[in-house]
Amino acid sequence: MVTIEEMGQRARRAFGVLAAAPTEQKNACLEGLARSIEGEQAALLAANKLDVEAAKAAGLSPAMVDRLALSDLRLAGIAADLRGVAALPDPVGEVFEQQTLPNGLRVRKQRVALGVIAMIYESRPNVTIDAAGLGIKTGNAVILRGGSETVRSNAALVDLVHRALAESGLPEDAVQFVDDPDRARVGELLRLNQYVDMVIPRGGAGLHQFCRDTSNIPVMTGGIGICHLYVDETADLRAALPVIRNAKIQRPTVCNALDTLLVDRKIAGAFIPQVVELLAKDGVTFRADPEALSALRGSPSPAALPAGPQDFDTEWLSLVLGLKVVGGLEEALGHIAAHSTAHSDGILTRSDENARRFVAAVDSAAVYVNASTRFTDGAQLGLGAEVAISTQRVHARGPMGLRELTTYKWVIEGDYHVRP
Amino acid sequence: MVTIEEMGQRARRAFGVLAAAPTEQKNACLEGLARSIEGEQAALLAANKLDVEAAKAAGLSPAMVDRLALSDLRLAGIAADLRGVAALPDPVGEVFEQQTLPNGLRVRKQRVALGVIAMIYESRPNVTIDAAGLGIKTGNAVILRGGSETVRSNAALVDLVHRALAESGLPEDAVQFVDDPDRARVGELLRLNQYVDMVIPRGGAGLHQFCRDTSNIPVMTGGIGICHLYVDETADLRAALPVIRNAKIQRPTVCNALDTLLVDRKIAGAFIPQVVELLAKDGVTFRADPEALSALRGSPSPAALPAGPQDFDTEWLSLVLGLKVVGGLEEALGHIAAHSTAHSDGILTRSDENARRFVAAVDSAAVYVNASTRFTDGAQLGLGAEVAISTQRVHARGPMGLRELTTYKWVIEGDYHVRP
Repeated sequence: MVTIEEMGQRARRAFGVLAAAPTEQKNACLEGLARSIEGEQAALLAANKLDVEAAKAAGLSPAMVDRLALSDLRLAGIAADLRGVAALPDPVGEVFEQQTLPNGLRVRKQRVALGVIAMIYESRPNVTIDAAGLGIKTGNAVILRGGSETVRSNAALVDLVHRALAESGLPEDAVQFVDDPDRARVGELLRLNQYVDMVIPRGGAGLHQFCRDTSNIPVMTGGIGICHLYVDETADLRAALPVIRNAKIQRPTVCNALDTLLVDRKIAGAFIPQVVELLAKDGVTFRADPEALSALRGSPSPAALPAGPQDFDTEWLSLVLGLKVVGGLEEALGHIAAHSTAHSDGILTRSDENARRFVAAVDSAAVYVNASTRFTDGAQLGLGAEVAISTQRVHARGPMGLRELTTYKWVIEGDYHVRP
Repeated sequence: MVTIEEMGQRARRAFGVLAAAPTEQKNACLEGLARSIEGEQAALLAANKLDVEAAKAAGLSPAMVDRLALSDLRLAGIAADLRGVAALPDPVGEVFEQQTLPNGLRVRKQRVALGVIAMIYESRPNVTIDAAGLGIKTGNAVILRGGSETVRSNAALVDLVHRALAESGLPEDAVQFVDDPDRARVGELLRLNQYVDMVIPRGGAGLHQFCRDTSNIPVMTGGIGICHLYVDETADLRAALPVIRNAKIQRPTVCNALDTLLVDRKIAGAFIPQVVELLAKDGVTFRADPEALSALRGSPSPAALPAGPQDFDTEWLSLVLGLKVVGGLEEALGHIAAHSTAHSDGILTRSDENARRFVAAVDSAAVYVNASTRFTDGAQLGLGAEVAISTQRVHARGPMGLRELTTYKWVIEGDYHVRP
């Protein structure tokens, strides 16, 4: 059995080859992988069926079982995503900050692959191909550790990845998979700073926290979004309603969905009943502070409950919305500073001054003026592919695309220059 | 006594204020600090004298004692450096990658302060002021841990920092100093990922390795440079000699000084004797591989000794140079891949093709064509101030300036946009 340390050494060697591979070769590998996922559909579904049956036998919830299940449609989606990544521009080799210094030295920065990336994720087997594809495209070797519930699906998928690498002349060790179910292996991987440059967890808040606390490698944490919208007294209330609705209900289970709505006191009496009436139709329930509740006195709703002590520090991930009345912009800013996880927060306003103050004061990965928080997403913001949404502050913040999986080198060309 | 955890909490709070402080206020603080260093020279030198005497009594080497000693001249230099930092453009607030998406959303990235930075360093007390100044300028709260040999000097300097912060209306907790000599405090600081965003060690290789292995926070390691120059058969040998000499002897004790010279076999017989003759006059001694030694057969030099097994994996930090003959560019690239610490490596050549191949293949923080490795330096490359030279790959690589102490937020402005 290959040890985690040996996997690190192999990844490092494979990185040396992959990092220098031409764009065409990397894209050919992705295309070959997409084709073989289509060609081997029956075998992949058979392997996945064993995982699904084991998960059912182990009593996993239907929602969990659904997350790990593959289907014709899902496999076609995975193949299409790979072709999408192949079609994106290769960030490796990009030149930026080019300049000639007064002494004549020609200096530029040139993007290069980052190195070895460990991706640690939970049940969904599509992440295996997604992570492998992003790694290959950006010239990075990856070490994958998926959930134990999908070990058979992942083994079948990783076989196809290795075949695609080999057929395109790239080293198979560029994508390695930790198939030992012992959780101690995750801890070893997270401490492998001699060989691994970055850790990207993909999963729930617990996984992110575990990686951050355990690893001696930079970890791109994210995943928790307690997101706010503040409606100030000048907002176009008719236009605000669909934005709030979109932020809350379009996909309530994800990190950029709205968790708390803050409403200026001057408009609370008129606006809060409209919000509750509209969103209650979609099945939203509310956790309202006393003042928001009293704004509903004229039009009480069974959907509006009093907020408990933890409710403004909760990421709902469901059709629940916190509601709070504030005495103006500064109080809204104070609430956001105290309760936001610095993922996505916005203001709805017609005041340029309030918008400017909000943007300057709110230090979140994404700060919005007059838009739904649901736009915090690589595809929505033009990145093509999304690697993760970072809510830590080092290296990359917010949606991470291909470029965020690179670093750079300085290239300095002279005419036999010496330092004075 | 304030615990390390409390320091983290205080730093986080102070960061909230400092990050939003206008450029003028931060610069006024730096100017005030520079003035008070000049005004309190006598008191600072008195405190430093106690450190110097204790160091001598403890038997520290004269070189070590010199490193921790302050003088009129050094204090004037520290004050001048602060004014230099004040004069640099403030990276906070810079807007980049501004675009309007097809749906009309206006998207930009805006630089913001990074957060809380822990700086861990060894004896030199000037680093205390340097680190405080860089932190204040970039809006970051810093927690400093200096060497125990300079505890009195640092206490006196930190008092002045706190006074300057208070006088300019900034929170004193923006710069905190760990004065507890217990080394356990360093370990606690390195594990404080709840409050600290980045660790920057400044010191020797051992300190960097310790931080990297201990910390659960991203660590900007650097500090070790095993640097190479490769002279190919086409190089202008007359012009190459002063470049090699500059890289080796201009300041041999620093990380960007040359450690190993690789010479193409076709020119070794003519060139190696010239190199040895020239550099031996400066007191350089050589560790030569058998072929380099045999190139000296016609002109033997007492300065050239046979290379030992570790000599091509040694950062000399002194007037010693490794010498090795290689059979061409590919062998040079192989040697560099095996022995470089990926700090600064270069080629001397007249061949555009060789230069291109070298730049593409060598994945070091700084890759040179026809220039001395000594240019890997923030000031030399136009950064104004140098925070550190990173040889890790995340966040920043090579010389780090003020901008590398920032992160960014996404600002997204719409017209009540919803995600379809």
